[in-house]
Amino acid sequence: MASASTSMRLRLPIACIALEVILIILFGVAVEYDHDVSGEAGHKTNTTHHDYENEFYYRYPSFQDVHVMIFIGFGFLMTFLQRYGFSSVGFNFLIAAFSLQLATLVQGFLHTIMTGGKIHVGVESMINADFCTGSVLISFGAVLGKTSPVQMLTMAVFEVILFSVNEFILLCLLNAKDAGGSMTIHTFGAYFGLMVTRVLYRPNLDKSNKKNSSVYHSDIFAMIGTLYLWMFWPSFNSAITPHGDIQHRTALNTYYSLAACTLSTYAFSALLNHEGKLDMVHIQNAALAGGVALGTAAEMMITPFGSMIVGFLAGAISVLGYRFITPFLESKLKIQDTCGVHNLHGMPGILGAIVGAITSLAATKEHYGNRLSAVFPKISSDFPASAQAGMQAISLVVTLGIALIGGIIVVHSVSRLSHEEEEGEGRGKERRVGGTFPGDVLS
Amino acid sequence: MASASTSMRLRLPIACIALEVILIILFGVAVEYDHDVSGEAGHKTNTTHHDYENEFYYRYPSFQDVHVMIFIGFGFLMTFLQRYGFSSVGFNFLIAAFSLQLATLVQGFLHTIMTGGKIHVGVESMINADFCTGSVLISFGAVLGKTSPVQMLTMAVFEVILFSVNEFILLCLLNAKDAGGSMTIHTFGAYFGLMVTRVLYRPNLDKSNKKNSSVYHSDIFAMIGTLYLWMFWPSFNSAITPHGDIQHRTALNTYYSLAACTLSTYAFSALLNHEGKLDMVHIQNAALAGGVALGTAAEMMITPFGSMIVGFLAGAISVLGYRFITPFLESKLKIQDTCGVHNLHGMPGILGAIVGAITSLAATKEHYGNRLSAVFPKISSDFPASAQAGMQAISLVVTLGIALIGGIIVVHSVSRLSHEEEEGEGRGKERRVGGTFPGDVLS
Amino acid sequence: MASASTSMRLRLPIACIALEVILIILFGVAVEYDHDVSGEAGHKTNTTHHDYENEFYYRYPSFQDVHVMIFIGFGFLMTFLQRYGFSSVGFNFLIAAFSLQLATLVQGFLHTIMTGGKIHVGVESMINADFCTGSVLISFGAVLGKTSPVQMLTMAVFEVILFSVNEFILLCLLNAKDAGGSMTIHTFGAYFGLMVTRVLYRPNLDKSNKKNSSVYHSDIFAMIGTLYLWMFWPSFNSAITPHGDIQHRTALNTYYSLAACTLSTYAFSALLNHEGKLDMVHIQNAALAGGVALGTAAEMMITPFGSMIVGFLAGAISVLGYRFITPFLESKLKIQDTCGVHNLHGMPGILGAIVGAITSLAATKEHYGNRLSAVFPKISSDFPASAQAGMQAISLVVTLGIALIGGIIVVHSVSRLSHEEEEGEGRGKERRVGGTFPGDVLS
Repeated sequence: MASASTSMRLRLPIACIALEVILIILFGVAVEYDHDVSGEAGHKTNTTHHDYENEFYYRYPSFQDVHVMIFIGFGFLMTFLQRYGFSSVGFNFLIAAFSLQLATLVQGFLHTIMTGGKIHVGVESMINADFCTGSVLISFGAVLGKTSPVQMLTMAVFEVILFSVNEFILLCLLNAKDAGGSMTIHTFGAYFGLMVTRVLYRPNLDKSNKKNSSVYHSDIFAMIGTLYLWMFWPSFNSAITPHGDIQHRTALNTYYSLAACTLSTYAFSALLNHEGKLDMVHIQNAALAGGVALGTAAEMMITPFGSMIVGFLAGAISVLGYRFITPFLESKLKIQDTCGVHNLHGMPGILGAIVGAITSLAATKEHYGNRLSAVFPKISSDFPASAQAGMQAISLVVTLGIALIGGIIVVHSVSRLSHEEEEGEGRGKERRVGGTFPGDVLS
Repeated sequence: MASASTSMRLRLPIACIALEVILIILFGVAVEYDHDVSGEAGHKTNTTHHDYENEFYYRYPSFQDVHVMIFIGFGFLMTFLQRYGFSSVGFNFLIAAFSLQLATLVQGFLHTIMTGGKIHVGVESMINADFCTGSVLISFGAVLGKTSPVQMLTMAVFEVILFSVNEFILLCLLNAKDAGGSMTIHTFGAYFGLMVTRVLYRPNLDKSNKKNSSVYHSDIFAMIGTLYLWMFWPSFNSAITPHGDIQHRTALNTYYSLAACTLSTYAFSALLNHEGKLDMVHIQNAALAGGVALGTAAEMMITPFGSMIVGFLAGAISVLGYRFITPFLESKLKIQDTCGVHNLHGMPGILGAIVGAITSLAATKEHYGNRLSAVFPKISSDFPASAQAGMQAISLVVTLGIALIGGIIVVHSVSRLSHEEEEGEGRGKERRVGGTFPGDVLS
Repeated sequence: MASASTSMRLRLPIACIALEVILIILFGVAVEYDHDVSGEAGHKTNTTHHDYENEFYYRYPSFQDVHVMIFIGFGFLMTFLQRYGFSSVGFNFLIAAFSLQLATLVQGFLHTIMTGGKIHVGVESMINADFCTGSVLISFGAVLGKTSPVQMLTMAVFEVILFSVNEFILLCLLNAKDAGGSMTIHTFGAYFGLMVTRVLYRPNLDKSNKKNSSVYHSDIFAMIGTLYLWMFWPSFNSAITPHGDIQHRTALNTYYSLAACTLSTYAFSALLNHEGKLDMVHIQNAALAGGVALGTAAEMMITPFGSMIVGFLAGAISVLGYRFITPFLESKLKIQDTCGVHNLHGMPGILGAIVGAITSLAATKEHYGNRLSAVFPKISSDFPASAQAGMQAISLVVTLGIALIGGIIVVHSVSRLSHEEEEGEGRGKERRVGGTFPGDVLS
C-alpha cells in the first residue's frame, strides 16, 4: 500500500471539483428540458399531448439496460484482471459519471449548431450520453493499469469532444446509419485507446498476475460484466432507432448474432488452445463481438440468417485476435492492450461498419416498404443505395482517422501531464514503484 | 488441472461449429421476420400500424427480465457448488446460447405444422425460446458435474425437441393453460434431468466439497442467481399471457406467492436443522418454489390469498424435499440430483399443475367477466370448467410420461456417446480421474 | 460456529409461520384485485378499457427496478462488512419479503379509512409496499450485527405501521409532495434506526473487521449493491409520480443529481483522507446521496442545473458525515451506526426535504403550465406556494418526531424481547459471546 504524496492528495479532488463546477455552470447557462420533459410545454403549446405517448415509456427501459451495461457491464468486465479489481469498478464509476455529463453538453452543443437555441435534455440525450461514455470506457480498457485517475479524466475530456465531433460528421454530415455505434462507439473507442496506450508503453508492465488464488473469483466477477453486456446488447443497438418494427428488428437481429457468436467463441477458443481448454478471457470478451459487429446493420433487413453469419464471424475474428494479434501488437508495435479492446471492439467494429455498408447496398423499396424513409431517409428521397453504401464506407475511414490522429494529439497532452505528475510526486518512493496503478489510490 | 486429450480438443469445437452451421442454414431456409418486425409488412398490407402499439413495447421488458433469469439467474444459482463455479456459469452460457436458437426452430416448426408457411420470429418467439432454454438448464442442474460439454449439447438437442413436442401437445392439442410453465418448463425439465442423472449414476461422486474456504463467496455468488430469479419470476410467469389485466394479475399473484414462500422457507429450514441454523441451500432454492408452483394458475383469478397459500406450501414442500427426499433418491434410487432440481422444479411443478387444475374448476363467467374468453377460450365457448380441469390433469400425466420415457431414451444415446468418449480419451490418465468434470476444460 | 439453543431453534420458525399465517388470513379477509388487475372489472363496468393502457405497462418496469434496489441493492450494499456477508444478504431477503406483505395491508388499510371498502392491490400498491420495505431496510442497516432475526422481524412490524402512519399524515393530511421519499422513506428510516441502535448500544462491538484477506471481495460485492442503487435511483424517484412529462423529468433530474454527487464524493473522499486515498465506504455510500436528496424535489421544475447543485452538496455532506459525524455519534451519543445510514439516508434526507420546500416556494403557473394541478394540486386550487412550502417543512418535523419518538417506544419492546431471549438462551455459553450476530444462524 503506497502512500500517495500531498500533491496527489490534492490533484484528484481539485480536478473533480473544478470539472463539476464548470459542468454545473454550463448546465445552468445552456441546458433546458426537452419538450416531453417540461411542464412549461403544455403551457406554451396548445397540443394536448397524451401522457401515455411520452417518449419516456418507449425509451426508458432501453436506457436502463444501456445504463446497466455502462456501469455494471464495463465495470465488472474488467475485474478479470484481479489486480485491478478495485480500479476497474471504482474508476469506471468515476469516469462514467463525469463523461455522461460532459457528453450531454458537447453532443447537445453540436446538435444546436444548426438550429441555435438551448441544449435540450430528455431520455434520448441520456441514451446518447451513455453511448459516448461507453466509448470512453472502451478506451479506458486499453490503458487500464497505466494511468492515474486524473490522467483518465483528462483523457475523457478530449475523447468526449472528439467522439462527438466524429459522431456529428457521420450522422449529420455524411448521413451514415450507425444506431448501435459499430463505428462511432466501438471502432472509435478502440483505436483511440490503442493510440493512447501506444504512447504510454511500459516495457516492464507486469502481466504475470494471472495464476493466483483469487483468479477464480475475479473470473466469476468478470462473467457478471460479460453476461450483462451480452443480455442487454439488443437493447443497446435498438435504444435510439426509430420506433416500431425497426426497434423490434434491431433487438431481434442482435439477439441472434450474439447467440451464434457465443458458439463460435467456444469453438475457436478450444480449437486454438494447445490443451483444448477454454480460455475464460475469450469467453468473457469474444462472445460479445456479435453485438459490436451488428451495431450498424441491426436495424436493417439483414434477416436472422445474415445476423447469425455476422455473429459467427465476429466471434471467430475476436478469438483469433486474442491468440495472434494481441501478442503481435505488444511485441512488434509496443501496444499493450490491457483488456484486449482491439479484439472485442476494434476488429468487430470494423467488421460491423463493412457489414453495414454492404447491407445498405441491398436496400430497396421492396424490402423496407413504407419504412424505407425511416431507415434510410436519403435512399427514400432518390439517393441511390450505392451512394449510401459509399457514405457508410467513408464514415469508417473518417472514424479511423479521427481516432488515430486524435489519439496521438491527446496522448501528448496526457503524457505531458503525466511527466509533471511524476516529477511532482517523485519524493514518494513507493509511489514510483507501484503507485501509478490507480488501484493503489483506493483504500 | 488435467490435460485434455487431442480427441477432446477437437470434439467440442467440431460440435459447436457443426451445430451452428446447421442452425444458420435452417434459419436461412425456414425463418422470416414476424409481422411486427418487418419493414415489408407495411408494404404488403395497407394497415397503418401504429408504431407505439408494436408488441415490442408490451413484451420486451418482460423478455429482458426472463433473459436475465436464464443467463444470470440459472448461471449463478449453480455456483453454490464451489467446485463447479466456472462450469455452471460458463457452460450455462454455452448451452443456453445454443438452445435458444434450436428452440426457435423446433417451436416455430410445430406452430407452422397446421398453417404451413415459414417460421415467424419476433419478441414472442424470443420469450418462448428462452422458456425452452430454461427447461434445458433445469435438467443441466440435475446432471451438473457428470457430463462433458459435448454430452450436454447432445442432451440439449434431444430435450429441446421433446420439450417442444410436449408443449405442443399441452397447449395446442389439449388446450391446457400453462403460461408460466409449471408443467411444460419445470416438471418436464426436472423429471427429464432426473432420468438422465439416474443412468449416469456415479457411486464415488465427491459431494464433500462444502466445507472449504471459498464456500462463503460461492454462497454469495449463488444468492445473486437466487435473487434475480426471485425478483423477476413475476415477469417470467406473465411474459406470454394475454395483455391487460391478465398480465397484470399474473405478475401480482406471483409476487405474493414468492413472498409467502420465502417466510415458509426460512421457517422450515430452521425447524429441520438440528441446531436451528438456516441452510443456505434451502434459502437459495426453496424460496423460489413459490414461483414454480404458480406457473399454471397465476393468470387465473386465484386471488393474492390463494397465491400466498400456494407459495407457503411450495416453500415447505421444497425444504422437506431437500431434507428427506433428496437423500432417499440418492441412496435408494441412485438418482444424484446435484442441484436439487427435484425440490425446486419437480415437486413444486407438480403442485403447480394440480393448483392450476383446481383453479380451472372454479372458473366462471362471474369471476372472469368478459375476459373469460382470453383466459379460458374453451370454457368461454361452452366447454364445462370440469373438462378444462380434466385437460389440465391429463397434461400433467402427459408431461411426466414424455419427460420420463424421453429421458430414458435420450440418456442411452448420451450414455453411448459417453462410453465412446471415455474410450477415446482413455489414454489420458489424469483425464479419467477428474477430467469428466466440465470445469476442468476451462482454464 | 456457536450452536444455537433449542429455544432459538423454535423461535424463528414459530415467528415466521405465525406471521405468515396471520398475513394470509388478513389478505383473505381484506384484499381484492384493483380495477386494472381483475377480470371482474370488465364484467361489472361497461367501459371497454384498452388493454394497452393498463397501468401495468407504465409502472411495471419502474417497479422491477425498485425491486432490484430493495433485494440486490440493499442486500449487497451491506456485504461490505465482510463479517455480515451472509446476514446482510440473507436477512435482508427475509425482512423484505415479510415487510412488503405487511406494508400492503397497513398502507392499504390507511388508504381505505376515508372511503371504506376492501384494500385494492395492483402495481401501484406493489411499488408502495417496496418503498416501505426500503425504509425498514435502512433501519436494518443501522442495527446490523446487533439484533437477532426475530428481533428484526419484531422491529419490522412496528416500523411498517409507523412508516405508514407517517406517510398517511404527510401525503393525505398535510398534502405534502414526496414521491421519492426523502422524508417518508429515508429520513424516517434513518432516524428510526438510529434510535433503535442507540438503545442496543454495545460497548465492545467489534469493528476491527476491516483489514482481512476477504475485504477485497466484500468490497466488490458491495459495489454491486451500490451500482444497482445508483443506476436505478431515477426509477425509484419516478416510480409513483404522475405519468408523462412529470415521470420523465423526475428520472432525468435524479440522473444528473447522482452524476454530480459521484464527482463530489470522489473529491471529498480523497481530500479528507490523510494519504489522499479514496475510501471504498464513501464511494459505496455517499455517491448515492444525490438520489436521496432529490427524493422530494425531483418531480418539480428544479432543472438539471439545480439537481446537480443538490447532488454535489449531498455527496459532500455525506462524506463529511462519515469522517466527522459518525465517530462523534458513536463516542459521544453512543449511537453505533453500523452501515452509516445517517450519512446516506439521514442528512441527505433532511437536505432533500429542505430542497423540496424551497422548490415548492418557487412553483408558479408559468413554470408548470397546465401540469401544475398534477404536481401541486393544492397550489393549482388557489393555495399559495408559500403554504405548500410550509406544509413541506412541517412534514419534515413530523417525520423526525414520529421516527425518534416511535423509535424509542419500539426499541423498548424489542429490547424487552431481547432480554427475554438472552435469558432463555443463557445456558449456551458460546451463544452469549458471538451468538447474537444473526450471521451465526446461517450455516
